Amino acid sequence: MSILVVGSVAFDTLTTPTGKAEKILGGAATHFALAASFFTDVRVVGVVGRDFTPENEAILTRRGIDTAGIEHADGLSFHWTGSYTGAMNEATTLSTDLNVFADFSPKIPAAYADTDFLFLANIDPVLQLRVREAMPNVKLVCGDTMNYWIADHTASLKKVLAELDVLLINDGEARLLTGESNLVRAAEAVMALGPKSLVIKHGEYGATAFFSTRSFPGLTTAPHPFRAPALPLSEVIDPTGAGDSFAGGFYGYLASQPALTPEAFRRAMFYGGVMGSFAVEQFGTKRLENTTREEIEERFRLFERISHLDVATK
Amino acid sequence: MSILVVGSVAFDTLTTPTGKAEKILGGAATHFALAASFFTDVRVVGVVGRDFTPENEAILTRRGIDTAGIEHADGLSFHWTGSYTGAMNEATTLSTDLNVFADFSPKIPAAYADTDFLFLANIDPVLQLRVREAMPNVKLVCGDTMNYWIADHTASLKKVLAELDVLLINDGEARLLTGESNLVRAAEAVMALGPKSLVIKHGEYGATAFFSTRSFPGLTTAPHPFRAPALPLSEVIDPTGAGDSFAGGFYGYLASQPALTPEAFRRAMFYGGVMGSFAVEQFGTKRLENTTREEIEERFRLFERISHLDVATK
Repeated sequence: MSILVVGSVAFDTLTTPTGKAEKILGGAATHFALAASFFTDVRVVGVVGRDFTPENEAILTRRGIDTAGIEHADGLSFHWTGSYTGAMNEATTLSTDLNVFADFSPKIPAAYADTDFLFLANIDPVLQLRVREAMPNVKLVCGDTMNYWIADHTASLKKVLAELDVLLINDGEARLLTGESNLVRAAEAVMALGPKSLVIKHGEYGATAFFSTRSFPGLTTAPHPFRAPALPLSEVIDPTGAGDSFAGGFYGYLASQPALTPEAFRRAMFYGGVMGSFAVEQFGTKRLENTTREEIEERFRLFERISHLDVATK
Repeated sequence: MSILVVGSVAFDTLTTPTGKAEKILGGAATHFALAASFFTDVRVVGVVGRDFTPENEAILTRRGIDTAGIEHADGLSFHWTGSYTGAMNEATTLSTDLNVFADFSPKIPAAYADTDFLFLANIDPVLQLRVREAMPNVKLVCGDTMNYWIADHTASLKKVLAELDVLLINDGEARLLTGESNLVRAAEAVMALGPKSLVIKHGEYGATAFFSTRSFPGLTTAPHPFRAPALPLSEVIDPTGAGDSFAGGFYGYLASQPALTPEAFRRAMFYGGVMGSFAVEQFGTKRLENTTREEIEERFRLFERISHLDVATK
């Protein structure tokens, strides 16, 4: 089933310990859409400026991504400049030029009304809510957010959280949102705000899914958490977009399945890790552009081998 | 097969967000021995003072642990005072009174000469090496260390590393030892110093085993790393000794197996996580004293459920 993602389509200028990249295609919706495109049909709602070239758009359309929802505004595209050092666990932002993104008002093409899966990437929660309300018939709503919205736009964010089937955030965001240092208690507090399930991403340590009795139909007790590994990588070229690629792999796989079952959710966590592991192997979107479903399946089996006791049976 | 562990048998005075404990039994060898005692015979070489009571010793002997190698010296036992705050990932040391441990010179009872598995807990590498040389016939040597020895006793430590089949350390220690921020490259650099295999503990995120071509007999390529989860816990009462309990579960299980195979190693990683998860549920050694093999097996199955895709088959 198809996914609609709303979020940033942007340019990134990056410095890492291994190199530099000048104004390459990035943005949460871009990474998400590319990762999800290996599993299902993806539609993007976003805004770009006149510096967004046909070559940039072709990066998406070559993967079959529907870009009719990307508005072309007069001005320059969102442009983020950042750098990474050491273990590259966190980016240092050097500049954030919102440009046309500052006035982003999502416009959803009429043809997108039949979308089944909605993904609200990390944007102003006021816009997330507006998109969610414009898509009342979606089957599943999944979303992301970040420290900035948690700390300074809490009231708006809480309205979005009440609408979510699944929230994807990282450890620090879960702690900030709840004031709980213990992740299990933080997860319970997050789900009390609305999300039926919660995926907490731990960077190089993988991710944990937390469930409630509302996570799947017919539950009387909440399922145990599920932990998916990340791939130990000897070289990370560019961590930008790893979390969005995780989300794309996770949600893309879920959207490709006949039903939201615990087993599908667990496998989606692994596919999320797989797409995140590809994303960081080259600058920007390069690695996601050039992978194949065969390569994805091969890496999925590798994820099983590094985490399952009885690998001979796989 | 039997394990000999050399390390600290000590008292801990602790403050955590949930409570306090005054001069309770602790020490790396204590936690290790209790955790390993559920899998195999354990012998302890250490030193205590006149404040070490028969009741303290009974905590070990009740679990069948051989305490003949614990020397009783004139003076007070090693006493560590520390506190934990927030997510309790790191202890703040308030005082370290080495007492009789300052002059510790391991004396190995003649009856321990037939020991098959040697564990060198975190003590002065000069002493670790002396014990290793006094036990030339052991089948497997596994060890631990810490930042202090890595930073200031590097030359002695490297002689120990050259003797190890398996080293167990945490992320920070692996990075400090090698100067590599990337964990995969750090692991390769550690194994180049001697250890055939390396277990890096990630605290609440689990642990990763890294292998070389020397990890198991008959290899031509190094096996992929293996990641074991930690249990998401809603309440951590006292993290002291969690790493030593992991080591005890890991090594105790390995010592109970007929051969060092990749499958046994993977299962040992899970048993390490299981014993670490018990250790933190109560102050000091209380939880390890009172668990059972049945409870351990039940939690092992829980570790499978939180990390394996196809739990129905387990």
